[in-house]
Amino acid sequence: MREVVVIGIGMTKWGECWKSSLRDLFVEAAMKAMDDAGVSQIESLYVGCMSGGLFNGQEHIGPLVADYLGVCPVPAVRVESACASGGVAFRQAYIEVASGMSDIVLAGGVEKMTDVDGSEATYALGTAADQEYEFFHGITFPGLYALMARVYMQKYGITGEDMASVAVKNHAHGLMNSHAQFQRAITVEEVLKSSMVADPLHLLDCSPITDGAAAVILCSKEKAMSLSKKRPVKILGSGHATDSIALHDRKQIEHFTSTEIAAKKAFAQAKIGPEAVNLIEVHDCFTIAEICALESMGFFAPGQAGKAAAQGTTALGGKIPVNVSGGLKAKGHPVGATGIAQIIELVEQLRHEAGQRQVANAKIGLAQNMGGTAASSVVHILEAC
Amino acid sequence: MREVVVIGIGMTKWGECWKSSLRDLFVEAAMKAMDDAGVSQIESLYVGCMSGGLFNGQEHIGPLVADYLGVCPVPAVRVESACASGGVAFRQAYIEVASGMSDIVLAGGVEKMTDVDGSEATYALGTAADQEYEFFHGITFPGLYALMARVYMQKYGITGEDMASVAVKNHAHGLMNSHAQFQRAITVEEVLKSSMVADPLHLLDCSPITDGAAAVILCSKEKAMSLSKKRPVKILGSGHATDSIALHDRKQIEHFTSTEIAAKKAFAQAKIGPEAVNLIEVHDCFTIAEICALESMGFFAPGQAGKAAAQGTTALGGKIPVNVSGGLKAKGHPVGATGIAQIIELVEQLRHEAGQRQVANAKIGLAQNMGGTAASSVVHILEAC
Repeated sequence: MREVVVIGIGMTKWGECWKSSLRDLFVEAAMKAMDDAGVSQIESLYVGCMSGGLFNGQEHIGPLVADYLGVCPVPAVRVESACASGGVAFRQAYIEVASGMSDIVLAGGVEKMTDVDGSEATYALGTAADQEYEFFHGITFPGLYALMARVYMQKYGITGEDMASVAVKNHAHGLMNSHAQFQRAITVEEVLKSSMVADPLHLLDCSPITDGAAAVILCSKEKAMSLSKKRPVKILGSGHATDSIALHDRKQIEHFTSTEIAAKKAFAQAKIGPEAVNLIEVHDCFTIAEICALESMGFFAPGQAGKAAAQGTTALGGKIPVNVSGGLKAKGHPVGATGIAQIIELVEQLRHEAGQRQVANAKIGLAQNMGGTAASSVVHILEAC
Repeated sequence: MREVVVIGIGMTKWGECWKSSLRDLFVEAAMKAMDDAGVSQIESLYVGCMSGGLFNGQEHIGPLVADYLGVCPVPAVRVESACASGGVAFRQAYIEVASGMSDIVLAGGVEKMTDVDGSEATYALGTAADQEYEFFHGITFPGLYALMARVYMQKYGITGEDMASVAVKNHAHGLMNSHAQFQRAITVEEVLKSSMVADPLHLLDCSPITDGAAAVILCSKEKAMSLSKKRPVKILGSGHATDSIALHDRKQIEHFTSTEIAAKKAFAQAKIGPEAVNLIEVHDCFTIAEICALESMGFFAPGQAGKAAAQGTTALGGKIPVNVSGGLKAKGHPVGATGIAQIIELVEQLRHEAGQRQVANAKIGLAQNMGGTAASSVVHILEAC
């Protein structure tokens, strides 16, 4: 397999994008990525989208976005792995370039979630869980993550304040990201006073409903040398793993086995360990998720990642900055696009173009994207060339 | 890129499968394929599914089926390209094995369409068209294909009888396929007397709503030599192409440009032309579709493929048998599974295990699978090893 680099990135402003349709959002992000890479044509594209069917009455997303991007007849593949759809799209594009089949491939993600009302969105998101044994019986995603949080709190004695500090940190980071849905600081007190969604998770422990798109251009390293306008960023490792679709089939619900395995695969391919990583983007769909994901990958011992947020260890300027982009919590979470935006943050940081939120001396970054209650996880490790 | 072969096949009975859920269907087909290949483990899987969201309230199909197949934590990717989802899943598995990343990969497809009523199914299928510029305004898939049929009839002077003969032929083939949804002969007169769905397409010009699954095991040729119980079948060529999502954006609506381009790519990779092919499976979602697909790939001159069906040229025993499996028309069309079942038919034929419907001296077969009104097409060419 060949070496593969990222040579272009682009994303839309994330939030409530009333004036843009699903296709508009994708095309805007994709054109920015192609422009950033300095390429006028691609050989194929992958698009991560969780549920164009339920959110927009639109499937067949691949040709739709290829058509409006003006790149037909290139192959266009839509992949879905719930909230990990973007990460999986990136990985499929990586495999295609690594295989030698194509030199220049676009990987993007998009979701337009505000076309439906809140209860319909909750329904659409619930389809990432086990329809027959979980969702049919009435539990929603905040409910499932609240179960994890309760188990974690009992086991490790973490407090609501510790969890809230993850949201506070990520909002502080989001303040510095012009693409973020929320650009305002919050306090631990505000989190704890916000409405209870599913005990112990308050509204401000939860990532929002978001419209948005993101895209990157992958290229064989060889071709990039003659092509790239900007400093290429190399894909050092890629891992993907699955776990039971339902939470009740796991031995430990506060440990993400799929994330652990995906990370191990990515680290093995990259031939490095967690200590070599300078910054991390993790899938903080809820505050508890950031904590469990970091521990599942071996960045912190069990019970320690919440304290790390409270103590500033995972903040910009801390020992190991996590979600400097603002994370899903503040940047927003258009589910199909999230995994791609994580890659974009790493690329900006590794190019040293992240402005105010630049992580000093960033050389190696890791992105962890997951679907449902971590029934699927994708981990990528990137390195500045 | 490495050489890749198919070493195992499996499918469920297709039809109205009231006693099996989406996951049950997939697992049955996948276990049959693994058993046929003689493998007890796979390294990853791809599943084609058009709309688990709208048909079953279930997305996140990859981990769902991996979980119930008992293969977690292997990577599991759901791909969607409307009715070409199965063909695209097969192609992605092919790329992964060809890349050297994995040796043994499962490609499957599944759709459970009868969990919803007829109008909901029509809605779900309509999401393969352009939601904003076609479907929103009321046109359905039979309507879109009826437009093609009208243009084709005007241009080439084909009759309703010629189109009907495609359905008659495929039903005659389906009689010999125990997996087929319909196992009964029909006559041209019956087709023309059946209810008008969208003029000029009668009910018996249309493929049905179907539940079903299909799966195949792909393997590197090298590994297959030490592994395979049965005669491996080699993937000679793979092509995938897209076209405008909406019919009104095409110069010629009765010619499938995406199918033409996908076929050209597959032929170029295989280093053969149409004359080398001994049997063809095409995407006959409507009778007119078989005609247009065959002509778009160069098997017949424009205006000739309908006559070919009427004259027996494309029947079993004819010069170039088409849809010996029964096609979508008689075998059924569980949309995500269709592209995989086409591959299964080729493999059975190339192994010379097709029983009553065996094509004599079959050495090379071609499968054409498409999404929507051919906004996406996938073509594969297989050869007996």
